[in-house]
Amino acid sequence: MSQNPLLALGEAAREASYQLLGLSAPQKQALLSAISTALGQHQDAILAANAEDMAAAEAAGLQGAMLDRLLLTPERLDAIRADIDTVIALPDPVGEAIDSRLLDNGLRLSRRRIPLGVLGVIYEARPNVTVDVSVLALKTGNAAILRGGKETLRSNRALLAAIHQALESQGLAKGAIQLIDSPDRALVTALMQMDSHVDMLIPRGGAGLHRLCREQARIPVITGGIGVCHLFVDRHADLSRVNEVVLNAKVQRPTVCNALETLLVDQAVAEQVLPVLGQQLREAGVELRACPRALVLLPEAIPAGADDFDQEWLALVLGVKVVDDLDAAIAHIRHHSSEHSDGILTDDIASAERFLNAINSAAVYVNASTRFTDGSQFGLGAEVAVSTQKLHARGPMGLEALTTYKWVGQGDYTVRG
Amino acid sequence: MSQNPLLALGEAAREASYQLLGLSAPQKQALLSAISTALGQHQDAILAANAEDMAAAEAAGLQGAMLDRLLLTPERLDAIRADIDTVIALPDPVGEAIDSRLLDNGLRLSRRRIPLGVLGVIYEARPNVTVDVSVLALKTGNAAILRGGKETLRSNRALLAAIHQALESQGLAKGAIQLIDSPDRALVTALMQMDSHVDMLIPRGGAGLHRLCREQARIPVITGGIGVCHLFVDRHADLSRVNEVVLNAKVQRPTVCNALETLLVDQAVAEQVLPVLGQQLREAGVELRACPRALVLLPEAIPAGADDFDQEWLALVLGVKVVDDLDAAIAHIRHHSSEHSDGILTDDIASAERFLNAINSAAVYVNASTRFTDGSQFGLGAEVAVSTQKLHARGPMGLEALTTYKWVGQGDYTVRG
Repeated sequence: MSQNPLLALGEAAREASYQLLGLSAPQKQALLSAISTALGQHQDAILAANAEDMAAAEAAGLQGAMLDRLLLTPERLDAIRADIDTVIALPDPVGEAIDSRLLDNGLRLSRRRIPLGVLGVIYEARPNVTVDVSVLALKTGNAAILRGGKETLRSNRALLAAIHQALESQGLAKGAIQLIDSPDRALVTALMQMDSHVDMLIPRGGAGLHRLCREQARIPVITGGIGVCHLFVDRHADLSRVNEVVLNAKVQRPTVCNALETLLVDQAVAEQVLPVLGQQLREAGVELRACPRALVLLPEAIPAGADDFDQEWLALVLGVKVVDDLDAAIAHIRHHSSEHSDGILTDDIASAERFLNAINSAAVYVNASTRFTDGSQFGLGAEVAVSTQKLHARGPMGLEALTTYKWVGQGDYTVRG
Repeated sequence: MSQNPLLALGEAAREASYQLLGLSAPQKQALLSAISTALGQHQDAILAANAEDMAAAEAAGLQGAMLDRLLLTPERLDAIRADIDTVIALPDPVGEAIDSRLLDNGLRLSRRRIPLGVLGVIYEARPNVTVDVSVLALKTGNAAILRGGKETLRSNRALLAAIHQALESQGLAKGAIQLIDSPDRALVTALMQMDSHVDMLIPRGGAGLHRLCREQARIPVITGGIGVCHLFVDRHADLSRVNEVVLNAKVQRPTVCNALETLLVDQAVAEQVLPVLGQQLREAGVELRACPRALVLLPEAIPAGADDFDQEWLALVLGVKVVDDLDAAIAHIRHHSSEHSDGILTDDIASAERFLNAINSAAVYVNASTRFTDGSQFGLGAEVAVSTQKLHARGPMGLEALTTYKWVGQGDYTVRG
């Protein structure tokens, strides 16, 4: 097998991760402060690099939300630095003893929270993520190898220069945070296969990137960020309060992963709910794609196509389906949900409990908007991604999700009998 | 892409996993009792099938420990049933609320422990594992698809017949526990790629199986069970108590993964430690493979070969290396350990803490034998495997390691502001 082209990055990251293990919480706080300071000092260079990225992106035909995500301004850099202050103030999970017991065999046994080691993060063309991920990784004592969208390469280089200056100012190796400094897509695969040097891979992106990870990755991967989210209006819902929640879930910010994709309505209340709610949604600019039973009650809706209940719309589009009952709603969600965020609207305790027990999505709601699935809304302070898989971390991944634990056994020259 | 040959098993397992979600802790206890009863009722058929497996294995040339692991006897079946009683008595982790808070946004947020869903387990020719894994999976509300060593196929079929009888007696689908009923190795790869129907894959086996998983698996994999374990005799160790721990770690049961592979000795005490300890090890039948500096003090040892410090011996062989100091010991362990179990022997608090902080193996010991890394020794009651990776679960995997969590948000028709 030929040598992995990222091997030198991997080795530097591993060495740096050993150095980070030795840092106390105050030392890590000082490092994060130094990053904030350096970002301020490097502001002109960062904005100049970003302007080049923006010009190239416009020339390449990028538009709208893509361009907006790419843009850095003095105000946005200030906001990024304010977010660093938030992370500095969060409790440091590393070193926590999860439990501690004296076993019958004489061993004092505990579990101690530790960094994962080296993170690999693949993400879209959003330069703010470069700083967010670096700061969360360092706060938890992890090194990171970053692969941002190719449209942000100049911005990311400038941001990394500031981060590296901060690392050096604290006597730390630059290998702690490294950028894959090339748009070559083969390096994405190389990163996925560096199992001896990367402990966890976080691919932020669409279904194509997730599929590539499932097929190529040799290291544990946390996928997520794709939300095919549902709300079910149960026959026992307070119908006077349903519309506000549905509108919030769909309309407040339709381009994000916790926005609503599909509204399920119990047939027992569909005639009462759908005509007025449908009108409110249409007034808010939402295009409705309805099943045949819903279509009768939503004359201006479009008939739902074969794949419409499996789409993450990221737009003002909503699938609407009338279902027989709670069981049918559960069956639909199990089949179509991406296991991101799903909820029930009901005043009946038994219905709520049945839904909560049956649906094992990363976040499950009773009488609340799906829009709450978010690190800051959950009080985690920040998130590195939203996991929709079963292992390790689920939902918004804050600091704790960037740690693991080891068993610590302390004896008195204790042997097994 | 052609259809996965295990698709029907996967679909049945997924359906069964939904049924298991609805079981209360007493219902799961009753199911486990029914399995114990059915194993008693099926004893003659199980032993007859095992006798056929044994005859075929002997004819195929299997010997020693391999044959012994394959063998079932009435006493061993009794022991398997006694282990089921132990699992019945363990606390049921499913449903536990990990924490619960009322957020400023009005949401009551908690994390609730849930089953993983469907487990895929690939294991060696040990029929007791078939029952162990089934019982641990069902106790935690998981379905499982099992792929045991081909030498135990007849025994596993007979054991599954008893388990299926128990499932049916409780009104549950047989799909909850299924066996890949063919020795075809292509089905192992098929199991690894059924990402829509299997939530976690546990490959118990050697480095070849782990490599196959890293390269082929499309689902989260927990690897482990390979122990390249170290003990470091620090210059501050109580030299009168070191030998007993080293002998216990190496000699008590050399064929298991938590047995000692490599002894590291601080050069400051090597002359005091090695001659006597070496003699005791040789008297216990241990072959020593020594680095040049250790060889001077161990005249009967063999010079260590290039790969000898990366071997899992599973036999009465021990690598011995003299190192300059604690830092050199840490560097050696970081490079050569499989991150299973590593320990330090020392009376110095600073040395112990430095070692504990620097070494992030699944289990790290101070003044104790590596032999403690075991579900029953750790008080977990049972284990489905020993994880040596960073994600999800580490070390002995008991019931909690077969669960994950979901976020539960409960509001009053609460919307995001």
